[in-house]
Order: sequence, then C-alpha cells, then structure tokens
Amino acid sequence: MHSTTTLFLVPIRRHGLFKHHLRRLHSKPVIEYPLTHPIYTIWASNTSLGKTLVSAGLSISFLSTTHPKKFIYLKPVQTGFPDDSDSRFVYRKFYEFLAYKPLPFSVLASNHVLRVSVPAGKSLLGTGFVGGSGKGENFGIQNEKGNFFDGFGNVGLYEERKLQGSEIGADEFGSSELVCKTMHGWKEAVSPHLAAEREGAFVGDYELLDTLKRCIGSDLGGKWCDKGELDAMCVIETAGGVASPGPSGSLQCDLYRPFRLPAILVGDGRLGGISGTISAYESLKLRGYDVAAIIFEDHGLMNEVPLLSYFRKRVPVLVLPPVPQDMSDDLINWFDKSHTVFTSLKEIMFSAFVERMQRLHDMPKKACNILWWPFTQHKFVPQENVTVIDSRCGENLAVHKFQSFDLISQQFDACASWWTQGPDAIMQIELARDMGYTAARYGHVMFPENVYEPALELAELLLEGVGKEWASRVYFSDNGSTAIEIALKMAFRKFLFDNKELLDLTNGGMDEKCIDLKVLALRGSYHGDTLGAMEAQAPSPYTGFLQQPWYKGRGLFLDPPTVCMQNGLWKLCLPEKMQTEKFEVEYVSFSSRDEIFKSNRDGSSLAGCYRSFISQALHRNSGGFSHIGALIIEPVIQGAGGMQMIDPLFQRVLVRECQSLKVPVIFDEVFTGFWRLGTESAAELLCCQPDISCFAKLMTGGIIPLAATLASDAIFKAFIGDSKLKALLHGHSYSAHAMGCMAAVKSIKWFKDCTTNINLIGESRLLQELWDSELVCQISLHPAVHRVVALGTLCAIEIKAEGSDVGYASMYASSLVKKLREDGIHMRPLGNVIYVMCGPCTSTQVCSSILVKIFARIQEFSQVNDSATRVVEQSPNSSNDYAESSSLRSDDEYLKSLPPLVHFRPTDGELIVKYLIKKIKKEKLPYDKLEYAL
Amino acid sequence: MHSTTTLFLVPIRRHGLFKHHLRRLHSKPVIEYPLTHPIYTIWASNTSLGKTLVSAGLSISFLSTTHPKKFIYLKPVQTGFPDDSDSRFVYRKFYEFLAYKPLPFSVLASNHVLRVSVPAGKSLLGTGFVGGSGKGENFGIQNEKGNFFDGFGNVGLYEERKLQGSEIGADEFGSSELVCKTMHGWKEAVSPHLAAEREGAFVGDYELLDTLKRCIGSDLGGKWCDKGELDAMCVIETAGGVASPGPSGSLQCDLYRPFRLPAILVGDGRLGGISGTISAYESLKLRGYDVAAIIFEDHGLMNEVPLLSYFRKRVPVLVLPPVPQDMSDDLINWFDKSHTVFTSLKEIMFSAFVERMQRLHDMPKKACNILWWPFTQHKFVPQENVTVIDSRCGENLAVHKFQSFDLISQQFDACASWWTQGPDAIMQIELARDMGYTAARYGHVMFPENVYEPALELAELLLEGVGKEWASRVYFSDNGSTAIEIALKMAFRKFLFDNKELLDLTNGGMDEKCIDLKVLALRGSYHGDTLGAMEAQAPSPYTGFLQQPWYKGRGLFLDPPTVCMQNGLWKLCLPEKMQTEKFEVEYVSFSSRDEIFKSNRDGSSLAGCYRSFISQALHRNSGGFSHIGALIIEPVIQGAGGMQMIDPLFQRVLVRECQSLKVPVIFDEVFTGFWRLGTESAAELLCCQPDISCFAKLMTGGIIPLAATLASDAIFKAFIGDSKLKALLHGHSYSAHAMGCMAAVKSIKWFKDCTTNINLIGESRLLQELWDSELVCQISLHPAVHRVVALGTLCAIEIKAEGSDVGYASMYASSLVKKLREDGIHMRPLGNVIYVMCGPCTSTQVCSSILVKIFARIQEFSQVNDSATRVVEQSPNSSNDYAESSSLRSDDEYLKSLPPLVHFRPTDGELIVKYLIKKIKKEKLPYDKLEYAL
Repeated sequence: MHSTTTLFLVPIRRHGLFKHHLRRLHSKPVIEYPLTHPIYTIWASNTSLGKTLVSAGLSISFLSTTHPKKFIYLKPVQTGFPDDSDSRFVYRKFYEFLAYKPLPFSVLASNHVLRVSVPAGKSLLGTGFVGGSGKGENFGIQNEKGNFFDGFGNVGLYEERKLQGSEIGADEFGSSELVCKTMHGWKEAVSPHLAAEREGAFVGDYELLDTLKRCIGSDLGGKWCDKGELDAMCVIETAGGVASPGPSGSLQCDLYRPFRLPAILVGDGRLGGISGTISAYESLKLRGYDVAAIIFEDHGLMNEVPLLSYFRKRVPVLVLPPVPQDMSDDLINWFDKSHTVFTSLKEIMFSAFVERMQRLHDMPKKACNILWWPFTQHKFVPQENVTVIDSRCGENLAVHKFQSFDLISQQFDACASWWTQGPDAIMQIELARDMGYTAARYGHVMFPENVYEPALELAELLLEGVGKEWASRVYFSDNGSTAIEIALKMAFRKFLFDNKELLDLTNGGMDEKCIDLKVLALRGSYHGDTLGAMEAQAPSPYTGFLQQPWYKGRGLFLDPPTVCMQNGLWKLCLPEKMQTEKFEVEYVSFSSRDEIFKSNRDGSSLAGCYRSFISQALHRNSGGFSHIGALIIEPVIQGAGGMQMIDPLFQRVLVRECQSLKVPVIFDEVFTGFWRLGTESAAELLCCQPDISCFAKLMTGGIIPLAATLASDAIFKAFIGDSKLKALLHGHSYSAHAMGCMAAVKSIKWFKDCTTNINLIGESRLLQELWDSELVCQISLHPAVHRVVALGTLCAIEIKAEGSDVGYASMYASSLVKKLREDGIHMRPLGNVIYVMCGPCTSTQVCSSILVKIFARIQEFSQVNDSATRVVEQSPNSSNDYAESSSLRSDDEYLKSLPPLVHFRPTDGELIVKYLIKKIKKEKLPYDKLEYAL
Repeated sequence: MHSTTTLFLVPIRRHGLFKHHLRRLHSKPVIEYPLTHPIYTIWASNTSLGKTLVSAGLSISFLSTTHPKKFIYLKPVQTGFPDDSDSRFVYRKFYEFLAYKPLPFSVLASNHVLRVSVPAGKSLLGTGFVGGSGKGENFGIQNEKGNFFDGFGNVGLYEERKLQGSEIGADEFGSSELVCKTMHGWKEAVSPHLAAEREGAFVGDYELLDTLKRCIGSDLGGKWCDKGELDAMCVIETAGGVASPGPSGSLQCDLYRPFRLPAILVGDGRLGGISGTISAYESLKLRGYDVAAIIFEDHGLMNEVPLLSYFRKRVPVLVLPPVPQDMSDDLINWFDKSHTVFTSLKEIMFSAFVERMQRLHDMPKKACNILWWPFTQHKFVPQENVTVIDSRCGENLAVHKFQSFDLISQQFDACASWWTQGPDAIMQIELARDMGYTAARYGHVMFPENVYEPALELAELLLEGVGKEWASRVYFSDNGSTAIEIALKMAFRKFLFDNKELLDLTNGGMDEKCIDLKVLALRGSYHGDTLGAMEAQAPSPYTGFLQQPWYKGRGLFLDPPTVCMQNGLWKLCLPEKMQTEKFEVEYVSFSSRDEIFKSNRDGSSLAGCYRSFISQALHRNSGGFSHIGALIIEPVIQGAGGMQMIDPLFQRVLVRECQSLKVPVIFDEVFTGFWRLGTESAAELLCCQPDISCFAKLMTGGIIPLAATLASDAIFKAFIGDSKLKALLHGHSYSAHAMGCMAAVKSIKWFKDCTTNINLIGESRLLQELWDSELVCQISLHPAVHRVVALGTLCAIEIKAEGSDVGYASMYASSLVKKLREDGIHMRPLGNVIYVMCGPCTSTQVCSSILVKIFARIQEFSQVNDSATRVVEQSPNSSNDYAESSSLRSDDEYLKSLPPLVHFRPTDGELIVKYLIKKIKKEKLPYDKLEYAL
C-alpha cells in the first residue's frame, strides 16, 4: 500500500466585489448538475446520528464490487475542523477497511480540503491531522489578512493513498477511485452560522452552491456520462439536522433547495427518535425534496415498526446494527456487519436514479401521446420540443436537458407561467408550509352562509387594498374567466335595476329577449375563454366559428389609442377612426413614461377629442332594443391582445363617460392586478375607480387558481330581495376554497411588506423600476424592434415583422425564443411579441441580466433573419446613440482589466457589458440579494 | 399546610363490545371542547426537553397572581409509571415552590391517576409513590384479569394538599385550585405504543379522546364560562416528541388532531436543536395546528437567533435559564428565576386565546358585511345563522357554537361541501403533506408544450381509470363549468369535421352564423354556471333573464324518465309525453336497485319505446340551419336538478342513438365521477362509453379545484391541422396546475386501493353499499317522505311538499335542516330535497348513525309540520312494516339490558336502535375503524 500526503496553500486573491458580481451576472445559470450518475444528499434528523458512517459504508459498498468506479464524497460545510473532518473519516475508514478486507483491484483514495477559516488553518499547523506517512511539511498558513478572502484561506490540503489490488492484472481497465472533499472548514464545533460569525469566515449561499456545482461537475461531467453502467456515484453530506443553519444562517434544507437533489435521511433509533425522524422527513418534503430511503442505527427500540407504518410503501426504511461502544477495532467489524444494509441502500439509490432517468426520458413522448395542451397545435410540437420541468425554485424552473449528456438546468420563467407567478424562493417555501397547514386545517369547506378565517381575511385584505374606497363586497370564484362572467351578471343586474322601466315592460308581457344587453369594450381586449367572457371581446383568433360556434360578440367594440416606446421615445398611436379628428401635435410623444399617467392631461384637447369620439360611438349604438349594460376594460395593458398599452387618458375619459350615463364599469384586473404593473391595482395608474373589479392570477402568488370579483355596495344591493331567485345564482364548488384564500392572504401581505419585498419603495406602495430604463431604451433603439412596453413586472418587445409574420398565429419569433432558452430564459411568445415577466420581488439585477441576454439575441436574430433585415429602418436615433454617451467612456479600463466574458460575444455584447459594469460600480449591489436570483 | 392522600381502585366492568359500539353510535359527537378558558397542548420536539417543567412553571405563574383561579394539568399518556409521573411532578413542584414562596391566599392542589396498566398498578404497591403524609394504605390492586378492561385498572389514585394562605381573610372569595391528572399510565419507560403492547393495556384513539374530552369538560364546563376574566386554564401535556406514537400507534400529532387545540412547542436549545425545533414546528403545522409560542432551555448556543429569524413575526420564541445540574434545592431557584419567562408565556397564551375568541365572535358579523356568498339571498341570512368553521378533520367540520357557553363542536359535512369531499382524516393529513411538497417542488408551472410529473401521472391515471378503453387525451381546466365548455367546443368541432359540407358552404360565402349548432340535453340537468355551460341546460331558476340576460337555451331538451324508491319500492316515473306511449305494466317497478342497471333491459319493450321517443324528437328538430352537434348528459344522477335518478336504460338508448347518428356524446361526470355513485365513473353503471367526459369536484379528493375533459382520439384529431388557429384555443392560466394534479393523483390512488379504502369490495372496483338498505327502505316508508335515492356515497330524500314548497327556491326543509345541525349533521337542502353525502372511505357505521338521526328528525318534522301532515297518505306498506319483521324481535332483550339512550327519544328511535343493535351483533364491527369517523 502506497500513500502520499501533500498539503499546500493557495491564498485567494482579493478581486473585489466587481468581479464577483460580474461572474454572477454573466456566468451560466448556477443551478445545473449532470444526470450521468446518482448524486444524493445525506441528511439527518439530528446531529451525531451517523451520516458519515452511512457515507463511509456506501463508499465501501460501492467500490467493493466491479471496477473501475468512482465514488465522490463531498462535505460542503465542516465545523470543528480539523479535529472533526468527515471527509477524512470516510477516507480513513475506507483504507482501513480495505487493509482488513483487500480488494482484487487497486483503488486510489484521496481526501482534499479546499478552504478553511483562519483559526481552522492555524490549528492545522502542528496537529496530528495529517495521518499516514505525511507530516504536513509542505503546509504553511500565510495569515496576513490580505491573503484571505472573506476570512478563508484556500488550503489545498490533499492526501491520497494508492490501495494496491490483491490480484495481478486486475487493474487492466484502470483502478477505481474514492474522492473525498471538504469544501469549507471552521474550527469551532458549533452550528456553521455561529462558527462563520465567530471566525469571521463567511460564505454566501450562492457561493457555496457554485463551489458545490463545480465539485460535482468537475468530477463527474462528461467523462462519466456512459448510461447503462453506473460507474460513479456522489454523496453530499450536510451538517447537523435538516433544518440546521448553514454558514450564512439559511437553513440547510433551504440552502440546497435550488439543486433539489434526491435525499437519504439518516434517522434516529433512540427514544424519541421516531418523532424526530418523521419531522425531519416532513421538513424535507416541505421543500420539495424526494427522500429515497431512511436509514438509522438500531437502539433496540424497534423504531422501524412505527416508521414503516408511517411511510407505508412510500419510502424504504433500513436499520443498521448498533454501533459498538468499544471502538478499538476502528469499527471494522461494524462495517463488515453492516455491509448488506449498505448494499441494499446503494441498490435503492441506484434503482431510484435509474427510474428517474427512465421517466425523464419517457416523459416527452408520453406527453405528446396523451396530453392535450391548450392553445397548442400539436402537429407543431415534436417530442424534442417538449420541456420536462423537474421543479421550480422561485422565478426559476429546473428543466431536463440533453447536451452531450443529461443534465438538470435552470431557466428563468420569463412568461411567469402565463402571468401567474410572483414568489421568490423564500416566499415559495413559506407558501408551501402554509398550503400544508391549510390543507390539514380545512382541506376545503363550503362557503355559502359559512365563514372561515382564510376567506374572511382575504376579503378584508382585498377591500383594504385593491378595493379601497370603492368596493364593499367580495365574490369568489375559480379563475379570471368566471370572475368576468360574474362581473357581467352583476353589471347587467345593476343596469336593469337602474332601468326598471325596461324590465317592467318585459314583465308586462313583452318577450324579455328583446332587450339586447350589450357590453362596451375595447378592441384587442381579452377577458377569458368561457363563452360569457368571450362574448365581451371583439372578434379575434380566439372567437372564430370553428373555435366557438356560439360566439356572437355581444358588444360595442371601440378601437383604443395605444402608447409604447419606439426608438427611445414614448409615443401615442391613434386608431384610424380617431385620426380624422384634429388635435395638437404635441400629444404624439411624451417626455417620459410618467407623463403618460399624469392627471393634468385631463384638460388637454386630446381628452376632449377622446370624449367626443366616445360619445359619438355611444350615440350611434343607443336606442331600440339595444342597450349598453356594462363597460369592461383591462386597465392600462391589454395582455393577451399582444401586450398593448392603452392610453390611460382614454380609459379614464371612457370610465367617466360611462359612469355619468349610469353604465356600470368593470375593470378586468386579472392580468394587471397585484403589482403586475408596479402598483397594487392598475386602477391606481388610471386614477379612477370601477364599480366592479376582477382579480385572479397573481392574487395567490401564482400557486393555485382563485379569483375574486369585487363590487361596490350599490351593485350588491341590486341583488337583495325577497326571493332566493333574486340572489346571484352563480357559484362553483370550490368557491373561496381555503387553500386559495390562504395563498392569497400570504401573497398579498408578502408583496406589500417592505421587509419581504425588496422592490417596494418605502411606504409609497410602488415598486421600484425593475427594468433598467437605459437598457429598455437601448432595446427600443434596435432596428429589429418595433416597440417596447416596460411597466412594473412586464417588459414586452414587439419584433418588427410583416404580413403573416404579424399577429397571434405568427411563428416569427420562435427561433429567437429558442435561442433565449439556451441562455436560460424560458419564454413563450405572443406571435411576434416577446415578453419577460418577473415577480414583484425579483431583483433588478436579475431583470437587467435578462435584458442583456435578450438584447444580444435580438442582435443575432436580426443579423440572421432575412425578413427582419428587410424591415429594418434607420431610425433617427441610431442604435449607436448609447455608445456615444460620454458617461460610459470612463468604464473602458474596467472592461480591459477583466477576464474574457464567455457568455456574450464581445462583438455584440460589449456595450451592454460596459453599461452593466457602470451600474455595478455605481450601485454597490448587495451580495446576498443575488443568491437565489441567478 | 394540610395534606391528605387517598387511593382507591375501581375496576372497570367488562361491558363487552356492544355497549362500546352503541356509545360511539349514539353519544353526541366526541369532538367538542369549551372555549370558556384557554386550553393548550404542550408539545416538544424531542423527549426530555422539559415539557413538564414548562407545565409546572405555568401552573405556578398562573395561580400566583389573583384568585380564585383553577389550573388543570392533564397527562393523557404516561409511560415509566409510577417512577415517572409528570402530573405528580407538577403537583409536587407546585407545593414545594409554595412552601418556599407562600401565597397570601389558599390553594387546593391535587393529583389524580385514572387508569394504569396491570404492571404499573402492581408497581404502585410498596413503592414510595405516595409522598407527603399518605402511605397508600387504602390502595389495593385486584389483579384478576376479569377486573380489568383492555388491560387497564381504573386506579382512582388521588392525593391532595390544601396550601394555606399567608394572609387572614384572603380566601374570602374562595381558594384557588391546581388539578393534576394522569389519564393512562404504563410501567415501561418506552414509547407508549410499545408499552401498550408489552403490558397488554390498550387504549384506542377514540377512547383516549373521549376521556380527554370528559377531563376537560368536567373541570371547566359551564362553571368557568365567565368571559372577560380568565380564571381558569388547562394544559394537556403530550408524551415524547410531536410525532411520537401514542398508545394505539397513531402519531400523537395525528391522534389529537380532531381537537386541533392551540399548541405550545418546547424546543431544543442544544446543538442540533434548531433543526429539531423547526422540524417539529413544521410537523405541527402540517396537521393544521396553531403554535402560540416556542420555549426552550438555554444551552448557551444562542439557538433563539436562527429560530427568531425563521419564525419572523409569526411565533414568539422564549428562552428559559439553564436547568442546574445540581438539583439539591428541587429546582426552586430555577423556577424562581424562570418566573418572568413563564409569566410572558402565560400572557402570550392568554392574549392568543382572547384574540381567537374575539375573532370567533366577530366573524359572523364581518362575514355578513363584506362577503358575497353564491346562491344566497343575503336578506335571509341573519348574523346568527352564519356558521363559523374552525377546521375540518376528515368528513367532519369543527364549528363554533354558543350553547350557554362558547364551544367548538363537530358536525358531519353532509353536503360534502358542495359534493367535493372525499378524504377521511388520515387521507387529509397525507394530502396536506403532498400539498406542501408540491407547492415547494413546483408551485405552479406552465403547461403547454411542457410536461411535469403530477400532470403526466394524473393523465395516465385518468386514461387507465375513468377513460379506460375509450379516451386517449386529457384536457385540463379549472372547474366543472370550464370542463363542460371545453367539451362542447370539442364536440362541435368534431361534428363540423364530420359534416364538412356544412362548413364548406360557410366558407363558400354563406354567413356561418346561419349554422345553428344545438346541444341535445335532458331537462333538469345542470352543467355549470358559466354562459356556455348554461346554454346546454333547459330553462331553470338559474337561467332567468335577471340571472343571465344572455342565456338563450341552445338545446333540444328532452324530459327523461326517472327512478326512485317510494314506499320501500324502486319505481319508474315516466314523463308526461312518454305516457302517451304504450308499454307493459311490469316496468313500473323493480325488484331491486340492481335490476334497474341490468343490461337485459335493452331488449325490453320499454327500450323500444325510449328509442322511438328519442328518434321522433330528433326528427322534429333536424333540417334547416339547426343541427344537433352534441349530446350532453349527467349519467345516472342529475345533481343540482334535485338529485334525480334518470332511468339508465333511457340514457343508454339515448347515447346509442346519438352515436349512430355521429353526434358526439359528452358525459358530465363532474358530480358523478370518482366513486360518488359507487363506481369510479358513472359510465360504468350505464354500460356505455362517451366520446368526451368531464370530471372535477371529487377528482382532487375535494381539496382544490381542478377539472379534466377526456376525449377520444377521433375528437382530438379534429383539431390537428396546419395552423395554430385550428388548435383548441381555450385555456386557463392554471391549466394542469401541479397542486391540483398531485391532489388528484393521490386521491384517485387512495380511493382505488383496498388497503386505504375500506369500502372497496376486493378487486371488484365497487364500493360496498354504504347506506344500509333496510334503513333506507324504512325512511322511504315514512309518510312525510316522497322519495329516496341512495346510491354510492349519496342518499337523497325528497320531503313531501306542495305548491311553492316544492322546488329550488323552497325553504320548506329549512327547519328540518336546522334540527339536524343540532344533531351534528351539517346539511344544505336543495329546496325540499335533503341529502347526505359521505366520502368513498366513510365507514358504513357512520352512514347508519346519520340515517338514524335523519329518520328521527323526519318523524319529528312530520309531527310538527302541518303541511306535511296534510300530504301524508297511508301507503300500502305502512311505516310499521319494519317493526313487524320477526328477525328483529330477538333483539328485545339486548335493548332492555342497555342503559337509557339519551340521544333519541325512545318513542321514535326505538325500532332503529333495535335494528342497529342487530347490525352490531351480526357484524362485530372492528374498533379502530370508527375512531376518526364519529
């Protein structure tokens, strides 16, 4: 047996924060791991339950069979170092066991310590840490502060042993390998967050995950990608219990969550251990982990019986023999006795892995065969275009990819899963716990004539928030479309209530169907897919006879004026019919987006022009049996209609006209509500109040469907009477279901609270600008871009196109979208309009990094796309304007001093990168805000 | 200081199982507790963390202030007895502390041990257990087996001390009281389930809760109901950790769940204790508990810092001083030092209690002011009629009541919360964990062109189950109504696809609106509240002009023949139009319900009659622009239409006629699907297959809204083409949301698995008969009853009524329903139809006990109700038929030997009680199946 030990120290250079931020902004998404081999996290329900024994046992069991194989043991966080070193324990037990039971073939075992705190580093000197023949003579700590980064020394402590095989020629195909690594070590044997603080050696969550990713990646990667044979395995051992804090203070179960690696839980065989084991399991489940097996040391209490009963068939439970009090044989006998248990565990881990891989590979085909996706022409979706989503963590999806080998990779959910999403990673975990609680407390309970906390609390929050000063009642339903149908029923009833003469006429014998109640709506608006909601929208691709033969279009549909940014300027675009009117030229463009919303526009001649346009339209449609019984609008932004921003002045004038005529006004805030546009409700942006308002989507934080229709007291009163038949007879079984209400309560509070939502500007109840205005301007200047609308959490970009490339059915942007998926941005275009939608709490840094990537891909797209090139017009503000701005020149030297940027080609990305450097310099972005974001 | 100790033994007589079952069936609902004073459960994250120290500290803190007060300490489960006795510890520490720090007023302290196992009882003899002046001389164990019940002796061990006050006259208003009780003791210091097994002393979950209820009730009850002053307090101390098994093996957090008392969690201040504390907290939350405070002993590790960070503002965290190693002063100093902490804890507990009470009292008023309930005339709902639902546990609601004092009381959710509910208490907890997991793993992710496990697995399960042999695609949406609109769109497209000539004509220039596509449907059917779904139903109270001015009724609506049980017989009722046809008399009634479903009826003359009726109707409506584009039916039972059972032969004939004409057939199984009618789908009962089928409600187990429209391959193919515009452009943001899919996966598997669903008959995929056929027959014989339909989980009873008392808007049954709520049955009538709906796993015993109560109340109702008396007709089978049956006579002696039954007046309930006794005798019902049920 040959053994060498070498130790060396490579102090980390202080690159300064800039580089760190750049790496974060430009590196590929951090969360990515290969699926070439099983990678498991070893958790325990408490400290000292034998996680390391399990790791060691697995390493022996795994490497003792065929060869060559590789077993990787990673210990990201080690306290009590160097006295305690779990990686060293695994390494030593392995070679001690092999000395006792030699293998026919050779194994190269190594132990590597990457970074330790200054006190831990000092302790290394002169300790007996370095076992075997080595004595640590190459080791020296340079403990000048300057040579350490964040209180760590980069201790390249390394020891290895070549364990010679007992059979000649057995190593013909190479030798096996045991790789043990400690990533971070602290001296004190306390919780990592305490050790980090006391020893001044900090590691952020992001940084830790990044190191972990590299440790997994560098040792497995492509080399080990041969499917079929499982010739490698990796275990990551956590510190303490599942919810013990990591070095930053984040609970470890939260810290490692973005990876969502499958788990092995080391349970507790002692008195009280059943409870601890079950609770730890539940904490893991509450973070979305899959637990492949439970294993624990026997203490003679038969804890496996109640555990098996609890786990039923879900999770196997394995029992290890008692660890002897007498450790004189270094546990060799115990490992020998435990061999079959570890072999079972290993096999469970393998088959769970193989099953997962099989499923990941089968899913696209099965999906194509049995699912029926909405809004999808299945003919256009080959199997390889199907995205397999493994999980979500905050704004990011973890998807299965194949890039020369299988991997799980992160993508930003840029369409916010059909505009529903809001939670960041921390909020998601809290929502998950609340969902478990609510399901356990209520499941669902019936609503009418009952009251229960989540429904009442949500109603209170809605009336204090989005319904403030006008709404007095909350009507719950299941989704935006049902909320709209309810709103229409409310509005029509109110209209009939106010126009009793119509009804009396009806009751007097006339056929009531002769009263033709219509809705006043804007062309391009969209209110949902059920028939009643569809009737309130103008004819569109969604309403064709083949789609819905019953659709009539029961409305008077007006063409609205829109606003957008074009070539760096916010501009007004009037519909054709209005262009016949005269108004002053000054209204064509705005000095800023804020100007568009200013209420002093009410006195402008444009406002007058709008008023006369509206009253003429109403006049033309009044009389006879036809009556306008409601106005319905999506305030400010028409979503499905292509992310069109409607001139808020026009909408305000429209609302006022209708209210003066006693036509009830409905705001469809299904898309716009709850900070989607930067304010809690879009009504705030319009500066006027509806009679009825509909909310859904983001209301629950995007976790579960629920809708609310808010109404004023006058609306409610139109339903009061002496018969049940006068009541609003519309309801769904799950009206005000407890889980939806609870999710909404949580979300509304979370978004509104400046301690949880970093984007709130103080007490102003406004979100800060999420989309960097200079970047947005830059994009709008690009010749391939027709218009940009950035407001609140939305940034929409219409790509210039012609003919059939324009509109909903266009596939024009699909190549662009495909490229952006490669960049880790999961988009779904609306024809030739692409958009990014973040959550109300998404950091501006994340938003900027996405815009940068989009800009780069638009550049590329316009270069390769013939038709795009065809429509490029040289705008007065050329795309080089930005480069000319002197404020950026000073950043050149920074740019030069930096390492090459891999993600953007210098040709197209340089200006943007320069710009980002400037931003980073100026803002000194806080470190931890970025951790989950990228 | 005066002290007495008396011990006595009252052996429990073996009454036999019969009496136990009767008590369970007839006693008031077990789950009920007063809200007159704070009652808390003390939990811990592990054993030996000081739960009893906290209890003792609280007792001292509570009783040390003003007086007279009462503190009740309950220990339901004590192992290691009598060496360990926590109630004795609390009792002793209290008087020891008062000896050190006397109070001005007197306190009577007592300790009481109710039941102990035989070995524990034996150990009591000759031990020093009896402290103070007593010596246990009155105590003797009669250890003959016969004197013990379930291995327990009813040890009335009792000790008390009068602690004299230091001030003369301070006791003017009476003295304070400390009551300590151990409910069950076992000798071995192991987990209770092990001790119970080893010592042969078992206590079921139900029995334990019942004893606990009586301990809480007898000591607090009305006497202590004076609100405002909190002059009493009760703590219940659990054993071990939160998820430690109780004596039956149920985890304690599950065992005590029906009470859902607020919790105090004793955390762990040691290394690793942060994790254990958080996990224990999460296990409590996952069972719907509210945790009022965390308290733990300081071990110098500052565990409160990360705990506070985790709990944010949600839960206060309190730290107790370290418990000294040296216990020579019996912890007196420690209690003294901890006094302020315990006072804070007590105040937190008090203010949480007061806040809860305040909220419970305010909720009805707030609900009336701001909620807008569906299908509810608010004018008819005074505040006092609003039910405040505290929680749900399986099929039961826990509601707030006021009956001379405030209490939480259990009600069976007899309307299954609008027909959605399915889970029993165990399934609910598992669903809750799955909901937490799914929210953490996915939240919600977008569906189109994506695939993720819960959506795919659900689709697979649906196609293997309810879609077996005919469906090939699954289209997800949010609720039954949207599922129907999607189904209609599918059917119409298929019809147009098959009748291209119509479409070509259209494309050739004709106005497409001239094709008037109609749906063929049955009168009385109901398919949802959105406009598209409403159009498919015949005019009804839901469709009036005031309700939905856009409703036209785009269908051909046939009057269907119905079947029901009347006067003990299943009868056919033909619609008027059909009665003109001739058919044989033998079809008017059936020998059994099974006969109705028999396929040999297909050859009958009635079938021929149906066929000609249908083809004539279709003939009349064909030609011109009008086309029947789809058939839609609710198979077997029309739910909202008044729980009408349609003759399955008629529906089968109808389906076959349509399919022969290539009219796509839609089954609306929103209500009937997933075992609601005893089979997984109602299509199985009809013995024919649709082209499209809609599911919702019970699909998710009733926890969350989700719907699925299943379609055959031929339907799907009609949407394949070269344009996205040919795709089905209908979708909702939360299409196939992960949580809904996961809940459905869990529920479908649970209901289908005979290890989890006790009602499944072997491998037959049928539910056993849940509604006792003799009881159902008995009810149908009652003169006040018009008809009964009992099938699967549904038992509907139409009360005889006339004129305006009939139909949807009728309030006729409301007094009956009110009375049944007093019996713990929460109903909501459909006009003059009342119904009970249980879950697929509800035990038949529960079903029978409900029917018994309903029978009794109908009897009462018919006696007091004039109009009911008016319509009573003496049917040929009189209501005494049942009493005459000789098979029951033999039970008379049992009846006489039993104690008086409090819940039913002997006058009206006797026969039913006799009947039940017979059932119980015959079936030897297993004990534990009932535990959660009642």
